Amino acid sequence: MGDDCAVVRADADGPWVLKVDPTLEGQHFEVGSRDALAIARKAVHRPASDLAALAAQPCFALLSLEVPRGTPPSWIRQLIRGVETACRRLGGELVGGHTASSAPRLALHVTWVGRSVLRRPWSRRRARPGDLLLATGAFGGSRLGKHRRFQPRIREALALAASGEPVHAAVDVSDGLALDAGRLAAASHLRLVLEAGEIPIAPAARRLAQRTGEHPLSHALSDGEDYELLLATPPRSLPGLLRTAKRHRFVLSRLGRFEHGSGVYLADEAGALAPVEPRGYVQRFV
Amino acid sequence: MGDDCAVVRADADGPWVLKVDPTLEGQHFEVGSRDALAIARKAVHRPASDLAALAAQPCFALLSLEVPRGTPPSWIRQLIRGVETACRRLGGELVGGHTASSAPRLALHVTWVGRSVLRRPWSRRRARPGDLLLATGAFGGSRLGKHRRFQPRIREALALAASGEPVHAAVDVSDGLALDAGRLAAASHLRLVLEAGEIPIAPAARRLAQRTGEHPLSHALSDGEDYELLLATPPRSLPGLLRTAKRHRFVLSRLGRFEHGSGVYLADEAGALAPVEPRGYVQRFV
Repeated sequence: MGDDCAVVRADADGPWVLKVDPTLEGQHFEVGSRDALAIARKAVHRPASDLAALAAQPCFALLSLEVPRGTPPSWIRQLIRGVETACRRLGGELVGGHTASSAPRLALHVTWVGRSVLRRPWSRRRARPGDLLLATGAFGGSRLGKHRRFQPRIREALALAASGEPVHAAVDVSDGLALDAGRLAAASHLRLVLEAGEIPIAPAARRLAQRTGEHPLSHALSDGEDYELLLATPPRSLPGLLRTAKRHRFVLSRLGRFEHGSGVYLADEAGALAPVEPRGYVQRFV
Repeated sequence: MGDDCAVVRADADGPWVLKVDPTLEGQHFEVGSRDALAIARKAVHRPASDLAALAAQPCFALLSLEVPRGTPPSWIRQLIRGVETACRRLGGELVGGHTASSAPRLALHVTWVGRSVLRRPWSRRRARPGDLLLATGAFGGSRLGKHRRFQPRIREALALAASGEPVHAAVDVSDGLALDAGRLAAASHLRLVLEAGEIPIAPAARRLAQRTGEHPLSHALSDGEDYELLLATPPRSLPGLLRTAKRHRFVLSRLGRFEHGSGVYLADEAGALAPVEPRGYVQRFV
């Protein structure tokens, strides 16, 4: 810091992993929110969640900040300190940035430079027919609070990578379970069959469903902002990965399987398949 | 590309150099400008200019883009292609990014990951008493066009670094010659004496002065957005650096010297010194 650029030293060869994400007032947090720590944390965690999907440790972060005219300097300092703290808690460091004032809305653009612990980082393109779809955590209802409080699954990703069990593909869920899992399937040129009875539904999805009248599974499949990790693994990896999850005390569930073909399907208890549309699909099934 | 993160491989140890800069509608380019290529180029070149000040080659870029609702997709594609081209022309590569729509104004946040050709990159903090202040190019009047067309001084910086001549400190001029040179002096705990007769004044500064009624030197000292490179070097480096500049066909001038003390001073032909204030100072001298 102090110079215009951050200078960092690499203590080994890559692969380095680079990611930028914007966190925007009115889109990722409420207009006028003054909760500096929650905003800072979300801005740091959103791109870090993508690093988890490549089994990468966050190392260096940059913040490009746009603040509206009249924002109290003390609040801006609190926000930046919040970003620093959130970076440190992930084992990384805020090494530089830029603040522009007189912006029409508060916006935080955080870039992460991380390093994958794998020589060949996970990709979303290498799932194989017969692979299982596994997921950390539970899905749905994030808007009731998790979207502000989520932890990117760095710790879980590094533990799973260190297990040595083959993982063919991975992605984090930001836009919705069905959508992001479908992207992984499409990128791998495969069909994904989700087991309706196996989807881990978050308690918040059930609470939200009571308000919206939708089925909790609908929220789990489509709400988004879950920031959980999806993995495509061969069946033989399952026991070792489950042991790893148990040892590190996190939830890992089996949600479905990849097959030759294309599209995303939901299987009911009897095994009957129904296609899942990318959006607004769930009311037709549940 | 394709995955959420960019994966890059480092073929040697660092030092890596990281920089993010925003390029904002209404601040760095005119509100409503449709000149996609000029906007793209400036967004790429602004942070690259900071890399030049650390003798760093731009390697990998990320773009976080905010576009207003209703922006034609074809124009957005043109903008992104412009960013890709500008990155390639600097010897780097756009490896990832994010586009957010429905923004209140167009904003491009470009992050550069570069690598310094120097084991110990230049800094703004290591100028020494007796050092000369050198600069590439000429100053002032950037708002008449150069602020859109400037080339970051990457090529020049790499040539000067490769000369092997000692350079103690460097900075690029984005906010104004007097201001940025003063920051270098302050960071090095030194006084800077600028020779009024030696400041290279851009033709645009003379044209602008005819409109504004100010002295061209006033524009050269304070306009900003020159994106030239300032260097603090021991006098013995001067001949070798000038030869390097001549061989690579760029202008390198000697503007002043660093001394024990603090502040920025302007010396007239007779050697009389007058303090230079960080802003709005020039009318008092010229």
